[in-house]
Amino acid sequence: MKLNLVDKHQATLDTAVRALHARTFFAHYPENPSPEVYGENADKEGRAKYAAFLNQKFEELLQEDPGGWVGQEESPYEQQALGIKYPYFSPETLVARAEEAYHQWRKVKPVDRAALLVESLERMKTRFFEIAYATMHTTGQAYMMSFQASGPHAADRALEAIASGLEEQTRFPEATEWEKPMGKYNIKLSKSWRAVPKGIGLVIGCSTFPTWNSVPGMYANLVTGNPVIIKSHPKAVLPMAIVVAEVQKVLQENGLNPNICQLAVDADERLITKELAEHPKVKLIDYTGGSDFGNYIEGLKGKTVFTEKTGVNSIILDSVEDLDKVAQNLAFSVNLYSGQMCTAPQNFFIPENGVKVGNEQVPYETVVQKIADAVTGLVNNPKAAPHILGAIQNPATLERVKDAATIKGRQVLSTCDFSHPVFEKARTCTPVIYEVDATEKESYSRELFGPIMLIIKTKDTEQSIELAKEMAMQYGAISCGAYTLDADTKEKIMDEMGLAGTPVSFNLTGGIYVNQNASFSDFHVTGGNPAGNASFTNPEFVVKRFTWVGFREPAMS
Amino acid sequence: MKLNLVDKHQATLDTAVRALHARTFFAHYPENPSPEVYGENADKEGRAKYAAFLNQKFEELLQEDPGGWVGQEESPYEQQALGIKYPYFSPETLVARAEEAYHQWRKVKPVDRAALLVESLERMKTRFFEIAYATMHTTGQAYMMSFQASGPHAADRALEAIASGLEEQTRFPEATEWEKPMGKYNIKLSKSWRAVPKGIGLVIGCSTFPTWNSVPGMYANLVTGNPVIIKSHPKAVLPMAIVVAEVQKVLQENGLNPNICQLAVDADERLITKELAEHPKVKLIDYTGGSDFGNYIEGLKGKTVFTEKTGVNSIILDSVEDLDKVAQNLAFSVNLYSGQMCTAPQNFFIPENGVKVGNEQVPYETVVQKIADAVTGLVNNPKAAPHILGAIQNPATLERVKDAATIKGRQVLSTCDFSHPVFEKARTCTPVIYEVDATEKESYSRELFGPIMLIIKTKDTEQSIELAKEMAMQYGAISCGAYTLDADTKEKIMDEMGLAGTPVSFNLTGGIYVNQNASFSDFHVTGGNPAGNASFTNPEFVVKRFTWVGFREPAMS
Repeated sequence: MKLNLVDKHQATLDTAVRALHARTFFAHYPENPSPEVYGENADKEGRAKYAAFLNQKFEELLQEDPGGWVGQEESPYEQQALGIKYPYFSPETLVARAEEAYHQWRKVKPVDRAALLVESLERMKTRFFEIAYATMHTTGQAYMMSFQASGPHAADRALEAIASGLEEQTRFPEATEWEKPMGKYNIKLSKSWRAVPKGIGLVIGCSTFPTWNSVPGMYANLVTGNPVIIKSHPKAVLPMAIVVAEVQKVLQENGLNPNICQLAVDADERLITKELAEHPKVKLIDYTGGSDFGNYIEGLKGKTVFTEKTGVNSIILDSVEDLDKVAQNLAFSVNLYSGQMCTAPQNFFIPENGVKVGNEQVPYETVVQKIADAVTGLVNNPKAAPHILGAIQNPATLERVKDAATIKGRQVLSTCDFSHPVFEKARTCTPVIYEVDATEKESYSRELFGPIMLIIKTKDTEQSIELAKEMAMQYGAISCGAYTLDADTKEKIMDEMGLAGTPVSFNLTGGIYVNQNASFSDFHVTGGNPAGNASFTNPEFVVKRFTWVGFREPAMS
Repeated sequence: MKLNLVDKHQATLDTAVRALHARTFFAHYPENPSPEVYGENADKEGRAKYAAFLNQKFEELLQEDPGGWVGQEESPYEQQALGIKYPYFSPETLVARAEEAYHQWRKVKPVDRAALLVESLERMKTRFFEIAYATMHTTGQAYMMSFQASGPHAADRALEAIASGLEEQTRFPEATEWEKPMGKYNIKLSKSWRAVPKGIGLVIGCSTFPTWNSVPGMYANLVTGNPVIIKSHPKAVLPMAIVVAEVQKVLQENGLNPNICQLAVDADERLITKELAEHPKVKLIDYTGGSDFGNYIEGLKGKTVFTEKTGVNSIILDSVEDLDKVAQNLAFSVNLYSGQMCTAPQNFFIPENGVKVGNEQVPYETVVQKIADAVTGLVNNPKAAPHILGAIQNPATLERVKDAATIKGRQVLSTCDFSHPVFEKARTCTPVIYEVDATEKESYSRELFGPIMLIIKTKDTEQSIELAKEMAMQYGAISCGAYTLDADTKEKIMDEMGLAGTPVSFNLTGGIYVNQNASFSDFHVTGGNPAGNASFTNPEFVVKRFTWVGFREPAMS
């Protein structure tokens, strides 16, 4: 197997490995979709290419002899079917092809695999705009998020996984001479080690972040020599179909079996995720989605599993410098993609005696009203709102917002009506806000996925911390935002939320939000609470995908 | 918390971390028990100290207010009770004390923890000879193995775990400034990360290698900030009791809670291992022992588990240079501690048309006879045999040897009688050898723990490899020995056994044996087959014991 992509991408790989360790800002793929960065016609061409996919068979994949053509995507902006059909393959076919490909791919050297995978990301880059429109019209994300999250940010997270996987596999010498003094003589052994990939990987995607949440596991599997089957969510296939197609082309161009990376879709009458997950040849599973299915995945025997499930994210308000800026920052966080991010805050803990602002104690009611006003202000800003809110991916989310009206507490904002200025049929919903008492645990101790904010009145910040920690430990949490100017309170929050395995953003105002996690710097999900058992991308995320096996023999001397 | 041991042990830690990566020979603790190394009277004093423990309460532990005094050890050499009583504590008491100690220990910096733990190993070193006699008279190991495995080799594996844990926790910066260009302005964040330990660790020891198999998990837990409860096997408590006592003394001398490391023993009427393992506060479990209990441990929800269970180890004989030397090497491997090592070979695959020796094809029967003769020769060597065989730890092992007579095949060596020249009451048994056909899978597809060798007649080396791989994948394997002079066959064995997650030693003759695994160079158990899910000491062994949690806030600028 001769690959010649290492020279081309060595510098990128070296930089990425350094970035993993520096944890300062690093982005390989520009997040700015402007013509200066991506070219004059990039957006226009991307949009046209997306449009050309509609109501057609998706024929770019190099997977042969499909058993049928299926598709069930629909646009949350237009509330009508995309009409794209993908090739269907039975689980037996997918696994058999992956198994065959495995024995080719595992013999490619880690650095060659890494270079080839970087090449695939460079190809993906040429398709960021298509992927953006595909993401918009499957997830309901607004354009900018669709571009950034599914394009450059996803590619950076993939690059991070490649870098981490390459580093872990090359961290120990491939071979060494071992000489042990025995007194009168020395024992001399030649030793060598191989990082043996575990086998077929399955990546189960979600409907809200189809590429960002899928490529880390996908590339982590691939760089460590495991073939991978991408089982996208049936409502959000196109973004990953494009990525998989690019990977397959690079594989084939380099004389490799394109089935090293396969796309899997459900037939209408045969849901294949469980069949794939339970197949004894499937050794690795990456899963993003709801907790019920996630717990089932974690419970499967004989699998190495990486999950990101649901969580209950908290905001702790103790003391701030500028309450208006804080309210605006929080309002943005809950409006962003209408609360459909796994990192979106849900539970806002505010002490009953209010929040200290500078030297003044601002009453609880005033704080609540400021936040509600900031949410309303943003929603009513016609220049900003449509670009922040996007649309609602799943009709069930609208039902959930409606059901929230039964929460035992006070309604602060109860309507979510919003007319999208461009897509008149868009399924939309702006944040609703309910106030509940700290004693009403049942109301706030579960994830209410979507644009639902709960304001929880606590005795004091002590209780706010205690409840935020309890929620995270019992129901999981992926993010936490805390506002305090007191050093002891800050340390207490770090300590307690640390024990709950929850990262904390302190005192964010301006253009940075608790929802955002940067590759090469922020671990995403910790694995330390029920929201998931894995993290993008700490070393565990890649080392569990292969086995170190040692070989030794007497040295020739 | 001010600790001042870092200066004292920094050089040792640095050397150990380098050794982890070099994987050349490194041993910090000398394995030679000679007076020149350990002092004129070290052995004599150690023996006297061991004798002084007999029929007494073990009062060195700093665990207060025991609920009783219990002990059930007996010497396999003397077949009589040691009469040592250990303090008993209920699982609730052990967990409550560990939980309290956790919140002190987790706040000690990783490098301080590491230095303190090295100090404890230095104290352990002063007690290697006591530990050796304690090991002899609980496990039945011969003196030399008792000294080496339970003393210097165990301490080196502990040091390896400390080094690995320290490196992983200090691999990323504690804090960094993150500055993201946004066009007209930059977003500046101060970020920091903490390695948050997972919680209480439980280490469940075995009866044959009480310290060597327990200290890696124990020290890996401790260096990553987790308190640990050492639940030794009821028949082999004393070796670890001495180690725990030394750790507790070092903790107390440094102002720390000795309950950071506790010893747990069963009361006669209350077996506490399951209660401890199932306790919701116990987050980490290290287990060495039989597969049934190991599978139960692996199946517990909400625990991070590291297991070493049973396996079926193979020898593949294809072609050799000197058959006599090979036979002698293999005879030593099966005689060593009467086959009671987890790395001892059991299944010897020999092709029906024999083995190529240089240019000559030596018939199958001749090969079998050579091996049997080598075993008998070693057993009948009065100067060597007692020092190699040791005694049989568990009466059930003798029963297993007896039951082996029912194996469907030919008896090659069927008696295991052996009179120990020093301990006339010793429970002994030398290897028995049965020949079975490759078709009789039932006979050889399980671990027959103890001095039982099976010679399996195969069609050819191809079949030998296939069966060795199948055994490893289905029933687990911790070691494999292969003899071949053919490069293609060697590569095939590496590839196939690699897929079965089994390390292979090729063409060993002379003073190095398939059973032996060196710290800082050989991974012990791979985690890649049913013999266990963990490995001493690859990075996974320590990174799974803590969670990376990140914190960020706007940078002061």
